[in-house]
Amino acid sequence: MSETTTTDLYEVTMALSYLRERMTEPATFSCFVRQLPPDRGFLVCAGVESVLNYLSRYRVSLADARSFAEVLGRPLHALLPLVGTRFTGTVRAVPEGRVVLAGEPLLEVTAPLPQAQLVETCVLNLLNHQTAVASKCVRCVLAARGHAVVDFSLRRTHGTAAGLQAARLAALTGFAGTSNVAAARALNFPAVGTMAHSYVEAFENEEAAFTAFARCHPGPVTFLVDTYDTESGVAVAARVLRALDRADGSAVRLDSGDLKELAFRARAILDAAGLPRVRIVASGGLDEFAVHDLVASGAPIDIYAVGTRVGVSADAPFLDSAYKLVEYAGRPVMKLSSAKVTAPGRKQVFRRPGCADVIGLADEPAPAGSLPLLTTVMRHGMRSASSLPLDEAQRRLAAEVAQLPAAARKIRSPEPVRVTASEALMELTGRVRQRIEHEVFGTPA
Amino acid sequence: MSETTTTDLYEVTMALSYLRERMTEPATFSCFVRQLPPDRGFLVCAGVESVLNYLSRYRVSLADARSFAEVLGRPLHALLPLVGTRFTGTVRAVPEGRVVLAGEPLLEVTAPLPQAQLVETCVLNLLNHQTAVASKCVRCVLAARGHAVVDFSLRRTHGTAAGLQAARLAALTGFAGTSNVAAARALNFPAVGTMAHSYVEAFENEEAAFTAFARCHPGPVTFLVDTYDTESGVAVAARVLRALDRADGSAVRLDSGDLKELAFRARAILDAAGLPRVRIVASGGLDEFAVHDLVASGAPIDIYAVGTRVGVSADAPFLDSAYKLVEYAGRPVMKLSSAKVTAPGRKQVFRRPGCADVIGLADEPAPAGSLPLLTTVMRHGMRSASSLPLDEAQRRLAAEVAQLPAAARKIRSPEPVRVTASEALMELTGRVRQRIEHEVFGTPA
Repeated sequence: MSETTTTDLYEVTMALSYLRERMTEPATFSCFVRQLPPDRGFLVCAGVESVLNYLSRYRVSLADARSFAEVLGRPLHALLPLVGTRFTGTVRAVPEGRVVLAGEPLLEVTAPLPQAQLVETCVLNLLNHQTAVASKCVRCVLAARGHAVVDFSLRRTHGTAAGLQAARLAALTGFAGTSNVAAARALNFPAVGTMAHSYVEAFENEEAAFTAFARCHPGPVTFLVDTYDTESGVAVAARVLRALDRADGSAVRLDSGDLKELAFRARAILDAAGLPRVRIVASGGLDEFAVHDLVASGAPIDIYAVGTRVGVSADAPFLDSAYKLVEYAGRPVMKLSSAKVTAPGRKQVFRRPGCADVIGLADEPAPAGSLPLLTTVMRHGMRSASSLPLDEAQRRLAAEVAQLPAAARKIRSPEPVRVTASEALMELTGRVRQRIEHEVFGTPA
Repeated sequence: MSETTTTDLYEVTMALSYLRERMTEPATFSCFVRQLPPDRGFLVCAGVESVLNYLSRYRVSLADARSFAEVLGRPLHALLPLVGTRFTGTVRAVPEGRVVLAGEPLLEVTAPLPQAQLVETCVLNLLNHQTAVASKCVRCVLAARGHAVVDFSLRRTHGTAAGLQAARLAALTGFAGTSNVAAARALNFPAVGTMAHSYVEAFENEEAAFTAFARCHPGPVTFLVDTYDTESGVAVAARVLRALDRADGSAVRLDSGDLKELAFRARAILDAAGLPRVRIVASGGLDEFAVHDLVASGAPIDIYAVGTRVGVSADAPFLDSAYKLVEYAGRPVMKLSSAKVTAPGRKQVFRRPGCADVIGLADEPAPAGSLPLLTTVMRHGMRSASSLPLDEAQRRLAAEVAQLPAAARKIRSPEPVRVTASEALMELTGRVRQRIEHEVFGTPA
């Protein structure tokens, strides 16, 4: 199955029609999120790398045309105009791992209209998924207030490819590690892991299980202590760690029950056993809300392992994202249908400190004290800028997030940062609306 | 990146320890969903095919061992015991597209303990994701009460591979088509599509856009009528369809606003234009709840296009699924930790009409009037049964769903079907609990 056929059918029928009408002038599509989901004060841009890889490879082969013809019930020759199409356009984008806000373009594609249309589905898919997950991940890091957060999401992401992305976005947003071996290897990111309840159950008792595990694995170990009863499990773990002299860097993991209460009791048992440096890992359905409450409670938890709810961004598994035509053949366009009005023209985001952003037109000068956020990352279908290494992008994001208004960084009911439109953009919007109302409805121009 | 390294690190460390301890006796892991999400009266089993493909291919290569060693910071020789591992076990599973309920095993793996452990992460990932989405899709079909439902989810699934699965599960549960070309081609499933707002905007006006589209595409066409104003859009569509004599099988699509109200007005306009057979497609953030309300309102909508919310199962993007050790070396085991107690032993689901199921032990005789639901689909690591073609599985599912209690099929606040445990299973559970409490806590046996 080719990547090129992984598209909505309508991209193909529209592109064919554009070619037939010789509508191949440059078109600009702008990809943005209309509204933030509840409990998001800002988003973290992600997916741009995947989009650029996709566009670099994009090609309609004869086999693709045959697939299109087959599902359309048309003869192959009707699809031949598409064969050989590559993406030869320009892409301007917000770098991965920068804060973005509602209404701000994450990415703008400018290419001959049929090309810009054909790539819509995958561009939206990649940006939407990865931005949603990155925006969830960074909230976990915020909630942990300096405690380590690790990614255990692979078992519940939407397929394994989504699991790899979740781990990458965890790294981008400041997690300390992932359980996903393939991701850890590919990203040069720490792999972390403990043991399962089944491991403990497969032995006669916890002491035998912990001892066997430590025997096999030199260095720090993490014992899962809640298979039968958490407090007695911690006591067994303490005994084994002391007996084998393996306390250094080791930990116990709590995976069920009242994590706050159990963390205090586990800490007391470990301290009483003379193991003040054995750490406590908490897991089990955690997300940024649970982490926030545990941190606020003062629970002596050192590492938060988040999984399912974060890897699928459970409370907001999608964004209200759009890929909208904003200019065709040099003419700004917009959509007027109810509740989905889009602003016309190629845009730029002018970022001021604290993300007090102004959305303006691509060609207008940057307002004083602002820097343009979108940069040209692809020209003539070829990447024209390389991306920052993951660790540098992570540091840049951390600095940017730290500068956001405190209300936007809140875990519960954050206030989205407000964005303003430049005068030039507002003026253009009014002008285009008038022109469309005149052209389409016959109102006075 | 190898599929084998797409796993949680702890599967590897546990497997190594099992090998070192010579704990290679057969182990049975049972994969089930503990609790249904809100607004689910039942689930549709899915993901089994993907699991069997994964297990058939499973192999730890030397390169995989090197990856494991690297992320563990261990020398390669420490990982050599894993090299060459294949999956040689038995799998019993519920066929894809059968109804499953809380607590019922979807799939049981029996294999030498290290193997059964190594495959955990991917087995859980595949079953969890696909069962969640299939269970959402079937509710859309129920809500539509005989109206066609089509899948438009590709642009917002978690990556494009998840989009292919969404389309496959849409086909399995009775959708009429998908917008995803690759999926339509691979599944021999109808591809469907309309046009985007951008298409309309790229032309001088709607009439020019609709006319150009029809010129390019013979046969039925679907015009998107809400780019500027829905009612005038419908009027333009009607005019073009009549002028070109293309009404047959054609449709208009409503994508915003009050869909019920607009559908009535669109119908009136089309009927007044002498186009009673031009159909109405509704889309725009629809899920089973919205479809249910529209159908109940009597809105004259012929086709419901659902996308985002269904493709990611937005209200329940994950299931409370587990992969639990239930037997090792012939000894039934269970977990006692709070709120996560698991029943021991290899199991069977005995299905009676209406899914009045009994969960029992794999070896006990089927109660009168019941049929066992799990069948052996893999022996010695090789597939031992082929799966039903998608269309046959779909018909079987439709029949099974039709027999469910009406309360379980409700769209809002359905009542999950109750499952009972067989006497043999309850007796075993009591016995194992006592044994563990004796062994682990020293209570009287």
